[in-house]
Amino acid sequence: MDVVSIDPRTGEAVEVVAQETTTAEVDRLCAAALAAAPALEALGRTGRAGLLHALADGLEARREDVVAVADRETGLGTTRLNGELTRTTYQLQLFAEVLEEGSYLEATIDHAGATPMGPRPDLRRMLVPIGPVAVFGASNFPLAFSVPGGDTASALAAGNPVVVKAHGSHPATSQLVFQILVEAARGAGAPDGTLGIVHGVQAGADLVAHPAIRAVGFTGSVNGGKALLAIIEERPDPIPFFGELSSLNPVVVTPQAAGERGAQIGGELVGSFTLGAGQFCTKPGLAFVPSGPEGDAVVSAMAEAVRGTTAQILLNEGIATSYGRGAADLAELPGVETVAVGTRGDDAGFRATPLLLTTSAAELPHEVTEELFGPVSVVARYDDEKELFSALDAMPSSLTATVLRGEGETELPLAVSQELRTRAGRIVYDGYPTGVAVSWAQHHGGPWPSTNSQHTSVGTSAIRRFLRPVTWQGAPQEVLPAELTDDYQGIPRRVDGVLQLPR
Amino acid sequence: MDVVSIDPRTGEAVEVVAQETTTAEVDRLCAAALAAAPALEALGRTGRAGLLHALADGLEARREDVVAVADRETGLGTTRLNGELTRTTYQLQLFAEVLEEGSYLEATIDHAGATPMGPRPDLRRMLVPIGPVAVFGASNFPLAFSVPGGDTASALAAGNPVVVKAHGSHPATSQLVFQILVEAARGAGAPDGTLGIVHGVQAGADLVAHPAIRAVGFTGSVNGGKALLAIIEERPDPIPFFGELSSLNPVVVTPQAAGERGAQIGGELVGSFTLGAGQFCTKPGLAFVPSGPEGDAVVSAMAEAVRGTTAQILLNEGIATSYGRGAADLAELPGVETVAVGTRGDDAGFRATPLLLTTSAAELPHEVTEELFGPVSVVARYDDEKELFSALDAMPSSLTATVLRGEGETELPLAVSQELRTRAGRIVYDGYPTGVAVSWAQHHGGPWPSTNSQHTSVGTSAIRRFLRPVTWQGAPQEVLPAELTDDYQGIPRRVDGVLQLPR
Repeated sequence: MDVVSIDPRTGEAVEVVAQETTTAEVDRLCAAALAAAPALEALGRTGRAGLLHALADGLEARREDVVAVADRETGLGTTRLNGELTRTTYQLQLFAEVLEEGSYLEATIDHAGATPMGPRPDLRRMLVPIGPVAVFGASNFPLAFSVPGGDTASALAAGNPVVVKAHGSHPATSQLVFQILVEAARGAGAPDGTLGIVHGVQAGADLVAHPAIRAVGFTGSVNGGKALLAIIEERPDPIPFFGELSSLNPVVVTPQAAGERGAQIGGELVGSFTLGAGQFCTKPGLAFVPSGPEGDAVVSAMAEAVRGTTAQILLNEGIATSYGRGAADLAELPGVETVAVGTRGDDAGFRATPLLLTTSAAELPHEVTEELFGPVSVVARYDDEKELFSALDAMPSSLTATVLRGEGETELPLAVSQELRTRAGRIVYDGYPTGVAVSWAQHHGGPWPSTNSQHTSVGTSAIRRFLRPVTWQGAPQEVLPAELTDDYQGIPRRVDGVLQLPR
Repeated sequence: MDVVSIDPRTGEAVEVVAQETTTAEVDRLCAAALAAAPALEALGRTGRAGLLHALADGLEARREDVVAVADRETGLGTTRLNGELTRTTYQLQLFAEVLEEGSYLEATIDHAGATPMGPRPDLRRMLVPIGPVAVFGASNFPLAFSVPGGDTASALAAGNPVVVKAHGSHPATSQLVFQILVEAARGAGAPDGTLGIVHGVQAGADLVAHPAIRAVGFTGSVNGGKALLAIIEERPDPIPFFGELSSLNPVVVTPQAAGERGAQIGGELVGSFTLGAGQFCTKPGLAFVPSGPEGDAVVSAMAEAVRGTTAQILLNEGIATSYGRGAADLAELPGVETVAVGTRGDDAGFRATPLLLTTSAAELPHEVTEELFGPVSVVARYDDEKELFSALDAMPSSLTATVLRGEGETELPLAVSQELRTRAGRIVYDGYPTGVAVSWAQHHGGPWPSTNSQHTSVGTSAIRRFLRPVTWQGAPQEVLPAELTDDYQGIPRRVDGVLQLPR
């Protein structure tokens, strides 16, 4: 079947990019990935760091082409897409740094010795590549969470071949960047089979069922994640699945913050929930704002900002349909009021009009705690801290939770973040959850439904998803990986319980 | 319903230990665990290290009573059980060391600064307790993998209350050690609700379904693990499940090793597969031995050793029934020959007669690659390396893989371990897989069916299962955990990408 690239600004099909990948072709790609694994690992940390730099350089060299195709196909705009490409090349380079630094191997040596349980043999532990990884591209990050995104970068860095399931929302972008990466990888000495790409829903299902695939990285909906998990459970050998699934991202505005800078907060909140047309997994979907005049200032500023918006381009028809229905359903809930709507504008393509709703924290409808992609947010007004904490206690887990506090205020912010810490992976103070920096200390995850594991999909520790520990017992030096041999000094290691820096 | 303690040496019921835990009581225990969580975390690393030492001291003080009850209930013998209790107290103390050292928190600080993507906020990441943990006791380790075992020690160290599902094979031991732990915990200042215990299959199901439970540690069968996973998947919020499920533990004897010390290897292999009546998850269930006279020496020595054994006590009726049927089925497979049988001995209680079988590596029946608890092992004879590697390629994943090599031999051992590394978590050279040292470099895990995750259930990194990362963004010093504040110097931290040792 044809894989068609659609222009979201018009809703029209622009070109046939490829054919849906057949089961036989998926099989061939997975076999090639499996065959490539030893040579990719054998490149070593230095060789793979070089590979990552080459991929970044390859993308950079074709920046204009990539951004143009992605803009035509996603409607995200060239500013955003240029930023996203920068993010993508940056994270390839950062994982090269991770490889060079070497802590990620968790190299650990316990020499043979006496213990209260008797003699202990020589034990040496290190993380090794898990094997070929299936990566599912996300609709909302055509560059940073798709063919060349964080999952691909971390899986390759770990030493694993990657087969990407291209998202149906941007097949032309996927094909172009795939070709760029394949060429760059070849130039950097990576084996054939290091990268593969498939198109189509059935091909994605075939991929996660394939015996050669050893782990899955997925960014998408809860239902999509559950469907893949169901396929994995049918495997004779279920494999690790790392899903980033759904997130409400509650925001709490304290009374002091509202009093001090309510209007500013209101404008910034709208900026955050309409960023990328509200299609970020970190979009603040629910904001707790105090009742009374201070809170009114926040809501007025939000309303004004929303009224100043016009309809935004959504990524695809599915998101547009779901937004239209979902926003209308929310607006009709008992106790929910529509405060402001953006200008509807042109009707062509997949568009969403920004929408601001309010309700009471004391009688929060369950529906407002569910993620909805698109430029809508709900403000829940709270009368006092009891009402606030009782509402927070009913929050689902999210990738983020945000506290906007007053100057020097600590008591309430601390209490709020303690309450939300059990149900969020990142606590943001005096900022907004959209914008997820790629760094060593980043975490992008949280209890279900944010993710289905304790691992992150953004930041350097994302690499750990695609590694598994192996311990060598009583092994002669000749058969050990270099990093575990006695004389190796290039990376941090734990020796007999003591962490040692490289000399 | 009565929870009855049975003597495996006679098969007779000895006493009613407790009643099966009702759903209401499970609910009460889980609520108490949830309520205890903040105070347990607030004990801090030092306080919890003290708690772990107190638990170890408490068990040590009652060593004789504990070993006597466990021996009566499991038939494992006082030597083994004394060793197991030592292991248990040692691992409690080792996790205290892990807490004091502090690396396990993975404390990471990225100061605010410029990046190619624009300004980055201050980000600080650390692992925090995941919340109340359900621990399922294992039949074969009444002390080291049950109420006070590695799962409990690592979950408590991480800062989580624990509710244990006692194994039906040793309820009296479970109750006794539970009482000892509860008293010791109280003395060490741990909050009520830090420890709970439930009995009965339904109570175990209620436990993993309970909303307060945030992770499960399980050591048991593939079917048992799958049943619990099915319950978890029905939760509105599926939680992490860490199962240690099944393991064949293949052993390869190289021709050179067989030639140099065939008789010695034969005797040691029998010692390993009959240890603990063959009821270890690391029991070598299949050994590859070369054809020809060198290999014959290995098999002769094994046969002689097996003929010198007498029937061993198994832990419970289920294992005895399964062993009787499973061993008979194996012996009747086409191409499988019975080489030696131990002395049958007394018929009372739950007993197993050691059994040695052989077959051809070239035509390995699939059934011999499945784990079977009890003192049976299969020797597969191989004619050449091609036959060996082709058979290894069909091995399921295991916790361990073992290579017995000749003096100074590296080429074949390296090739074997490269082949088996993808399907085992620990590669043993010139030793035997039984006996799993508790240490920093240990790993006890492997791809499915050994475990269902990349994590270990033995060794210091077992603690990571019961922690989850949280990142604080732009947080004032006052609300940060001490370990993430600017001036803290007590643990290793990564600051702006650079690993720093405590000063």
